Amino acid sequence: MANASELPIGIFDSGIGGLTVLRQIRRQLPREDLIYLGDTARVPYGTKSPATVVRFACEDTQFLVGQNVKAVVVACNTASAWALLALEKRFPVPIFGVIVPGACTALKKTRSGRIGVIGTKATIRSEAYKRVIADRNGRAQVFAQACPLLVPLVEEGWIRHEVTRAVLREYLDPLLRRGIDTLVLGCTHYPLLKRAIREVAGSEVALVDSAETCAQFVRASLKQLGLLQSSESREGWIRSYVTDETEQFTRLASRFVGCPIPAAEKVELPSS
Amino acid sequence: MANASELPIGIFDSGIGGLTVLRQIRRQLPREDLIYLGDTARVPYGTKSPATVVRFACEDTQFLVGQNVKAVVVACNTASAWALLALEKRFPVPIFGVIVPGACTALKKTRSGRIGVIGTKATIRSEAYKRVIADRNGRAQVFAQACPLLVPLVEEGWIRHEVTRAVLREYLDPLLRRGIDTLVLGCTHYPLLKRAIREVAGSEVALVDSAETCAQFVRASLKQLGLLQSSESREGWIRSYVTDETEQFTRLASRFVGCPIPAAEKVELPSS
Repeated sequence: MANASELPIGIFDSGIGGLTVLRQIRRQLPREDLIYLGDTARVPYGTKSPATVVRFACEDTQFLVGQNVKAVVVACNTASAWALLALEKRFPVPIFGVIVPGACTALKKTRSGRIGVIGTKATIRSEAYKRVIADRNGRAQVFAQACPLLVPLVEEGWIRHEVTRAVLREYLDPLLRRGIDTLVLGCTHYPLLKRAIREVAGSEVALVDSAETCAQFVRASLKQLGLLQSSESREGWIRSYVTDETEQFTRLASRFVGCPIPAAEKVELPSS
Repeated sequence: MANASELPIGIFDSGIGGLTVLRQIRRQLPREDLIYLGDTARVPYGTKSPATVVRFACEDTQFLVGQNVKAVVVACNTASAWALLALEKRFPVPIFGVIVPGACTALKKTRSGRIGVIGTKATIRSEAYKRVIADRNGRAQVFAQACPLLVPLVEEGWIRHEVTRAVLREYLDPLLRRGIDTLVLGCTHYPLLKRAIREVAGSEVALVDSAETCAQFVRASLKQLGLLQSSESREGWIRSYVTDETEQFTRLASRFVGCPIPAAEKVELPSS
């Protein structure tokens, strides 16, 4: 049996958004093999109920564990918000989410202690960021805003569209009026809107990219656990699985990863 | 065993959009019992692949047939576009979709023969409206436009929002420039945007509401098949099932149906 550190890292998301996390992990850990699962037949998770999100996340993780991964990255804010504890209890590998790294980075960046968080309906409803931030700094204040139109706008490709700026103004104005100086992009789709968000929020608001901070956290944690690839020279491979047809995924994937990745394979998930 | 005409009508959709069809059936057939299934755990279908849409539609129909319905209404343009033939082959009850009634009504309304169709990505990709219209009138021309942002806008409740009008202008302008005089609202969510669509399209473009035309078609077909409720005086009941938690469905349902409906029940679907 291979040494655990030589095994791949599993990454899952409801769809393609988690590829922004894969991209950052690839950038920071180029020697690691990566297995990505996008549950594209049931995407999105952000509009679904907590019980359903937990069930789907368990099935996703079960699949990745079946692929013999050394750790699982929950590259989806909604699944991280609702399912992380359930996954940690149920599976024997380290599980990393996106919420804690994002919350900790926001606390490092803020000067005023007034932090904005944007995400899907389910993520915001979970109050996960609020809880993690309050646990670490009782004086910080979190102002949260669900932004259900942003994922469809990204998937439509309206990244620099005037409509997208109008939608962002509508969502961000209430947060900006509360005087936030830091804004957590609490959904793995949002890094693609960073430029538009910066335009609307203004340059004085620090943006926290949960994909980037998650990748830093994964690197630090694997190092601490002695689970980083030992080979100095190899280049890791990437393998992708989806639950719907592969065509649309493969077409959109390059936009998210920023480079071509091998064609995905369609799979059926084990039911939990 | 009850006479078949006394049995309920089954209606399904990927989520809540099909409730606009239920509303019209209720209005036109107030004596009929109606069983509605919304596959809210896997909504939407309009962004998924044909194979996945067919699989989901078979599972939805299987559930309704298990409830002993006399007919099944596919209250979803995407499922009607891709799955109708498969359902007709597989199940022993009459199956009614939304495409044929909408296409026929458009042909009745158009004077110039230039018909616009808007719908989800999957519906437009299927070219189902184009095919049905061409079969019936070889000279009519169909101009189609996928509008993936409209469903999220309706679900966000931005029915009369300036952003929605801007999105509609973007989607409809290419059709209006082609000189359409009739526009098929080829998604069961769109009737909720009728007023905004009328503003953008102008009063000289006739709108075809696929929910309304489907209900007329269901009434005429059941009559022809001798399957209409025989009792003159009774008021039909409505029962709803969903695959995700019931809370959000129940909250949004009244907006679609236009009157309160009994709380939905959560169910698991048989896998196909």
